[in-house]
Amino acid sequence: MAGAMASTEPDGVMDKIRAYDRELALLKHGTALLQWDQETYMPSAAAEERAEQLGLFETLVHDRVASDELGDLLARAGAGPDSPSGAETLSGLEQALVRHLYREHALARRVPRELVGRLARAASAGQVAWKAAREHDDFEAFTPSLEGLLALSIERAECLGYSEHRYDALLDQYEPYTRTAEVRRVFEELERELVPLAAEIAQAPQVDSAFLYGEYPESRQAEFATRVLEDIGWPADRGRLDCSAHPFTIGLGRDDVRITARYDRNFFNTGFFSILHEAGHGLYELGFEEQIRGSTLADGASLGIHESQSRFWENLVGRSRGFWRRYYPRVRELFPKTLEGVDEERFYCGVNEVKPSLIRVEADEVTYCLHIIMRFRLELALVENSLTVKDLPDAWHEESCRLLGIVPERDADGVLQDVHWAMGGFGYFPTYALGNLYAAQFTETFEREHGALESYLERGEFEPVLGWLQERLHRHGAAKPADELVNSVTGAPLTADAYMRYLRAKFRDIYLTA
Amino acid sequence: MAGAMASTEPDGVMDKIRAYDRELALLKHGTALLQWDQETYMPSAAAEERAEQLGLFETLVHDRVASDELGDLLARAGAGPDSPSGAETLSGLEQALVRHLYREHALARRVPRELVGRLARAASAGQVAWKAAREHDDFEAFTPSLEGLLALSIERAECLGYSEHRYDALLDQYEPYTRTAEVRRVFEELERELVPLAAEIAQAPQVDSAFLYGEYPESRQAEFATRVLEDIGWPADRGRLDCSAHPFTIGLGRDDVRITARYDRNFFNTGFFSILHEAGHGLYELGFEEQIRGSTLADGASLGIHESQSRFWENLVGRSRGFWRRYYPRVRELFPKTLEGVDEERFYCGVNEVKPSLIRVEADEVTYCLHIIMRFRLELALVENSLTVKDLPDAWHEESCRLLGIVPERDADGVLQDVHWAMGGFGYFPTYALGNLYAAQFTETFEREHGALESYLERGEFEPVLGWLQERLHRHGAAKPADELVNSVTGAPLTADAYMRYLRAKFRDIYLTA
Repeated sequence: MAGAMASTEPDGVMDKIRAYDRELALLKHGTALLQWDQETYMPSAAAEERAEQLGLFETLVHDRVASDELGDLLARAGAGPDSPSGAETLSGLEQALVRHLYREHALARRVPRELVGRLARAASAGQVAWKAAREHDDFEAFTPSLEGLLALSIERAECLGYSEHRYDALLDQYEPYTRTAEVRRVFEELERELVPLAAEIAQAPQVDSAFLYGEYPESRQAEFATRVLEDIGWPADRGRLDCSAHPFTIGLGRDDVRITARYDRNFFNTGFFSILHEAGHGLYELGFEEQIRGSTLADGASLGIHESQSRFWENLVGRSRGFWRRYYPRVRELFPKTLEGVDEERFYCGVNEVKPSLIRVEADEVTYCLHIIMRFRLELALVENSLTVKDLPDAWHEESCRLLGIVPERDADGVLQDVHWAMGGFGYFPTYALGNLYAAQFTETFEREHGALESYLERGEFEPVLGWLQERLHRHGAAKPADELVNSVTGAPLTADAYMRYLRAKFRDIYLTA
Repeated sequence: MAGAMASTEPDGVMDKIRAYDRELALLKHGTALLQWDQETYMPSAAAEERAEQLGLFETLVHDRVASDELGDLLARAGAGPDSPSGAETLSGLEQALVRHLYREHALARRVPRELVGRLARAASAGQVAWKAAREHDDFEAFTPSLEGLLALSIERAECLGYSEHRYDALLDQYEPYTRTAEVRRVFEELERELVPLAAEIAQAPQVDSAFLYGEYPESRQAEFATRVLEDIGWPADRGRLDCSAHPFTIGLGRDDVRITARYDRNFFNTGFFSILHEAGHGLYELGFEEQIRGSTLADGASLGIHESQSRFWENLVGRSRGFWRRYYPRVRELFPKTLEGVDEERFYCGVNEVKPSLIRVEADEVTYCLHIIMRFRLELALVENSLTVKDLPDAWHEESCRLLGIVPERDADGVLQDVHWAMGGFGYFPTYALGNLYAAQFTETFEREHGALESYLERGEFEPVLGWLQERLHRHGAAKPADELVNSVTGAPLTADAYMRYLRAKFRDIYLTA
């Protein structure tokens, strides 16, 4: 965006588009506050009406995106099916804004207003039903909600349209321009590589992680996390860290990005690594350059790119030797009894333990993508109507057994563990795995240009690392699509190669060289 | 509302009005969440943009209230200048809704959309400027904001229109149908009675209150307040208690009413009595009957009536002998060192100490209304342009000296102490004094019907008390105007008599019978 210049369009239409876009961004942030509050501080009895409030606000946003007024403005700026970025006389940044709004407008025009409201209400109510069902390990109680959400999502996909696969329409909401066939291909490749690597590791001598399940008082976990957040560059006056059942990040404004955490008093990883994860998302949202801040371009290029930032901080930083060389002494001070006799190397190996497990958000780096592949297959089958919601728990068991070699005893630890489907978020899961791949590919580029990441972390030099991410990735926001961004940053399109190189090097070192 | 019946209007217009009203209520609650968040959890750097967000949302609410669509619907329901409640064939509740919306609509039509946005943005920015000015005791830094807000408020008053006094238009926003002349008359009467009573008390032997300024750890204050809230009937699943610089109550939905507190570690009254005060407001907002819940009628009849509920719980309950007979043992347990040697009677007298003081929200019941009379005179002069903002601190000193006999050394303890003007809330202050009068008059009626309030409090029987308030006052919400409500509950119009009877009896007992 450095080359962005003033518009040369004659009739002031870009000023009007920018003003329109600004109100849209403000309206979206108001809606986001309703969501943030729902997950953090809202009194329990208010849940039902909050669903109605969200329904109305989503509808207001939809109306504004789908309006004739916006359509006319975009047309006047030269946007159309053959020129989605508008007139060639527009500056680069203006073209990016026009392309972004034109895409949103075209998609929104295809979904009727009342369906948007129904989906928002069902998603809000679905989350409430999901919470109760997970608490009582009662998938059947959640079945009607999930069936409704699936039907609405299919209805939405049919409205949006697609050329190859119904799932394309859903995936495109989260990972623009990416197709089901492409994901399937990458996931098949990943599965081929990951399953043998996991098996190889399973045969090796195992690492000790028992100390991670000791006593970790929440206030001390919070103290440590706050210290690390400060060190890596989290601005306390522009964000918040709160608690919620399911950790998330949400942007509420130019200088207001909030993350949430869930602590487990008896498992170190739950709190700390999810905070680093969400902080990665948050730092992306806080890093947009001045020219796009406050506009709807102040958003991730795609959820996969967004996830690359969270996985970068969670794993490539937070699960590295360099990081713990710096921070382990502090952790040991905070939890002296629990970590008695545990040295840095043992701690490092412990937080990197590879072991097929039931819960995705606690999965190690080797098996994580297998969790995603499983969900991708299942939701693909649901959307294709080749699997019913009723049969979903059985299918879950089957896939889990095949990919991870284990099955959950309770649905609460299986099919009910994630909130995504309860929000109607079919098509979302693949972006998590893509995020891993992007993160590894970006990191290889950073190291090619600046040397080993580890050495920065060991010295606590986070500023050059965050600065590089901001300069190369964050500042562009949604102004550069994911594929363009990956190509421009790394000089190559996305592949699984960098990720597999990273995994093999790291885990052979931990497991296979002892 | 007990007699409310189905509409007999033929063309379904009331269904349309109800649906329109429902969306309006949801939109108002979304706006209210932005305000709540601004005062509680918002990161500091987000303040500037929050002002813009609020500006947009206030404008959306305004557009919906002022719309041709609503005007047409109301006209179809028979509403007009000579029939503000609509057609006679409508049920009582329908007439109340039509009257309420017709009034809002007519007022909103008079204020241009862009002025609404400017006022909302100035109010939001004004609060930020006020906070900084108060913190640095720097009135001059706040002058431009306040001048801007005054000018905008006068502009608003001129748009709204009035027959007698420009201030009528502002007062009417908070206390519908009440005139400046009436407030002036009641306040003159009050001043005549209160100044000699305060003087009489000043001559009597003084009570001890030093122990109230001891050590009161905040967590224990919160523990006590939470216990009392539970006892008096505050539903934890339908509300919240948070902290903010200036305590307030805000309704965010049918089952979502939030109050805030500010604790002072070295003064018991600050936290506890303001929590009871806000809980009184909150219980009113939680007590609307089923038929009006979720509509825009789910609102106070007026701010004076609203304040009567907060002052009732704060003073008539919370500063009564009966209340402390029940709760003093608990307080003594929580703060054993601070309250060593302080018996119940001494504590009761202490929390009722009468002493001219600088801070309104900490004023005793005798001098409280004098604080209001002072503000009323000053804002009246500002609105009349007979006083400039620049001269306001001097005028404040003069009035303070005349009415209370003391003057603030710092503007932070004088003209900068309240947030109201920083929000453009000229015309708001009188409602506080009216609330005191209403509360006393309602209490006399309760006692006439059910016997001494004290005896209920002493036995911890809050349910019949809250039940009476809900049945006689709360459930009606804004469906009955204040004057109608007072007449129907107490059998008489508002006067200062009950309040003065209450004050004389209570404070002569404390000060003049020893």
